[in-house]
Amino acid sequence: RKAWLSRFNPPQLIALSFALAILVGALLLWMPVTHGLNPDGTRRSVNFLQALFTSTSALCVTGLNVIDPSKDFNRLGQVIIMLLIQLGGLGILTFGTSFALLTRRRVAFSERVRVAQQVSALSAGDVLGLIRNIFLYTFIIEFVGFVLLAFRFVPLEGLGTGLFYALFHSVSGFNNAGFALYSDNLTRFVGDPLVSLVIPALILLGGMGFLVQLNVVAHLINPRRHRLMVHSKLVLTMMTLLFLVGVISYLVFEWNNPKTLEPLGLGTRLLAAIFHSATTRTAGFNTQDYGAMTLPTIFISIILMFIGANPGGTGGGIKTSTFYVMMASAWSMVRGRRDNNLFGRRIDTETTLRAMTVGLLSLVLVNSMFMLLLIFNTDENIKFVQLFFEAVSAFGTVGLSMNATPLLHPDQHIVLILLMYLGRIGPLTFAVAFSRPEGKELVRYPADKDILIG
Amino acid sequence: RKAWLSRFNPPQLIALSFALAILVGALLLWMPVTHGLNPDGTRRSVNFLQALFTSTSALCVTGLNVIDPSKDFNRLGQVIIMLLIQLGGLGILTFGTSFALLTRRRVAFSERVRVAQQVSALSAGDVLGLIRNIFLYTFIIEFVGFVLLAFRFVPLEGLGTGLFYALFHSVSGFNNAGFALYSDNLTRFVGDPLVSLVIPALILLGGMGFLVQLNVVAHLINPRRHRLMVHSKLVLTMMTLLFLVGVISYLVFEWNNPKTLEPLGLGTRLLAAIFHSATTRTAGFNTQDYGAMTLPTIFISIILMFIGANPGGTGGGIKTSTFYVMMASAWSMVRGRRDNNLFGRRIDTETTLRAMTVGLLSLVLVNSMFMLLLIFNTDENIKFVQLFFEAVSAFGTVGLSMNATPLLHPDQHIVLILLMYLGRIGPLTFAVAFSRPEGKELVRYPADKDILIG
Ligand SMILES: [K+]
Ligand SMILES: [K+]
Repeated sequence: RKAWLSRFNPPQLIALSFALAILVGALLLWMPVTHGLNPDGTRRSVNFLQALFTSTSALCVTGLNVIDPSKDFNRLGQVIIMLLIQLGGLGILTFGTSFALLTRRRVAFSERVRVAQQVSALSAGDVLGLIRNIFLYTFIIEFVGFVLLAFRFVPLEGLGTGLFYALFHSVSGFNNAGFALYSDNLTRFVGDPLVSLVIPALILLGGMGFLVQLNVVAHLINPRRHRLMVHSKLVLTMMTLLFLVGVISYLVFEWNNPKTLEPLGLGTRLLAAIFHSATTRTAGFNTQDYGAMTLPTIFISIILMFIGANPGGTGGGIKTSTFYVMMASAWSMVRGRRDNNLFGRRIDTETTLRAMTVGLLSLVLVNSMFMLLLIFNTDENIKFVQLFFEAVSAFGTVGLSMNATPLLHPDQHIVLILLMYLGRIGPLTFAVAFSRPEGKELVRYPADKDILIG
Repeated sequence: RKAWLSRFNPPQLIALSFALAILVGALLLWMPVTHGLNPDGTRRSVNFLQALFTSTSALCVTGLNVIDPSKDFNRLGQVIIMLLIQLGGLGILTFGTSFALLTRRRVAFSERVRVAQQVSALSAGDVLGLIRNIFLYTFIIEFVGFVLLAFRFVPLEGLGTGLFYALFHSVSGFNNAGFALYSDNLTRFVGDPLVSLVIPALILLGGMGFLVQLNVVAHLINPRRHRLMVHSKLVLTMMTLLFLVGVISYLVFEWNNPKTLEPLGLGTRLLAAIFHSATTRTAGFNTQDYGAMTLPTIFISIILMFIGANPGGTGGGIKTSTFYVMMASAWSMVRGRRDNNLFGRRIDTETTLRAMTVGLLSLVLVNSMFMLLLIFNTDENIKFVQLFFEAVSAFGTVGLSMNATPLLHPDQHIVLILLMYLGRIGPLTFAVAFSRPEGKELVRYPADKDILIG
């Protein structure tokens, strides 16, 4: 079995393991024993495509839904969804590293150095130590979230259901999954400071990236020995900036919208804006209806969804660091500067090319799949902007919806399943694929510098 | 005066000269003497913003209109528009080179080498020789187009008007301007093989790029002495491929559309598809209504408009070579190849970075301006997709419209004016800005290779 596994390279193993887990999840969620009951006692039916969609959405921590997980699945089904979320959410680093160990392949050199740095920072001896720390950190944060949320859900839903709801939403929050156990997601909590602040906190901690969290913790414990990496400084800055952009733009463009902020009090408006900003960049919970928002808000949301969270976290999108490196490099070129510097370090050309490539490939992926959504569209009432929103939401594993997903044709659901899967494993796979050994080509052609650009 | 001019660098001079020409054009088109007459003999009124929009659209060879040039301007106004088109269409190379000579600045080294190669290929002694050849070539092609089109327009409109129409549409075609002297653009010629083939031929020759044309001509005259440059091979291949994509996708997605192809005969369908494909990638004439097309056609059109024509021609967009280099580089990275080779030459890293930067900045430009169009929107009937289409059309100096432009708010017209201007001079300016001397920074920071991407 080891020989069979080692025939695959890490990207293939990641792709394969995700596909397998999705399939197992789909089969489980297809079983009637996981389905909810109607008021008359009959079992609700979930077909295989719906189960596959739900399983993909959970494992890729996306949160788009074609059916209503709060009604169409019973407690068992919901536990399976929670487990799929937890499995998917531990994400790229854990998976990539585990598989590298499992197949006794060597972790790529640059990865090894980085991992070693972090592991030593926490005085553990090997990569398994890092993974243990990732698990520990995840469960501690989820436990704290669970306890805090229990204060809301237990009074609301009773002890048993309340505790499960607290756990489910804590796991869904930390893993940026966006699944909720209410038909209207978290809309009823728009004015509730506890839910509207604990969930964004979980989202941000989960989306921050494990290495960054370890680096920050180590730095806080011993600032002299453990400096903040350039990467940490970068993504913390980007998170803050993008968070502010989300809050401010939401307040500006929705302030007078009678379907969203206008009827709310001042404090609730602020809470809604904070929640919106935290959730857009990959989590996908909502306390307001995205089908009712103004087009400027929708367009900014699309951009934030595409950018996504930090690398190495539970979030999706092209990642904040990718976005920064692309933009900063372009700006350096416009300014005629040779180097693109950041916190006293020069950003490597290789890093720049990688960022540009990830951005470009993601754009190609989203647009090709969006094209398929347009081609397979049969309902004339569904708009261009709705399909584009759902496509970016699926790619960025966000899960926000302008309410079109449940109405789409089964062919379009298959496209979204594919997009959620590729949006989750794509950047991951690219990251590994890019670190392949160079120098296979023996012949090197002379450079051509005469191609005109722009 | 020379001293005053030489205080500006070439990009600033290009931007300034375009702005000045637009302003002069706007003032002329504002004068009542250039305006058309109503049936009752009163003069039609054109306000300054409308004149500015028309002047910008003509000089930037875009072809978007807020008013109807066939009715709101008289013959004098139409001649001014034609002259603005001709002035704008000679484009980047002529302008850039002239200004470099005028201010006695040296043409950037790489530019000089390239220009010298081409000039020597035509046995002329200096850069002025190249410019003379550009003018000659332009006027010869426009003259041939004029003669061919006269066979249609003289019988249709009488001798005087017919000859002017033939000249106007030949100039508008070769310069990829998209202005026509009928209220419905060229819709009435959808089944006319003469107009539906001469105009696309003019469009393709104009959009091919002067250096490529010179190279091809020199190669045809003496294949041994003048080889086809890698650049020429690349853009000719791309033109062919993108042309086929346009034709085939149009046939597929419009075949059964009762508002476009469905009522037409087989031959006319093919003509319409050929015309559509040639016009989308920057010319902006139309023989069918873009407001009536299916969403897949609209989306492919948006992508083709964004890609645009070849560099150094009369067309806009990010350019075919930019698009190829971006895509091919990304693909090389995915495949784990060290080099990105093309026709036995390696594409330089510098060229790759420049292409990615032009693509990214163009994307940022289009999306920022689109955001402004959304913010300033007051008409709830105007859709997201319409505004996005008009934005990309303005950026790519295409001029196709989903019929929203005339209905927009004056604030949105100002945004479109800005976008047409920046879409025309942006890539041009970047191209020059990128060739600035390096090495101003004395301190070079150590490289940071630890930033995680994707
Ligand atoms: K999500
Ligand atoms: K045009």
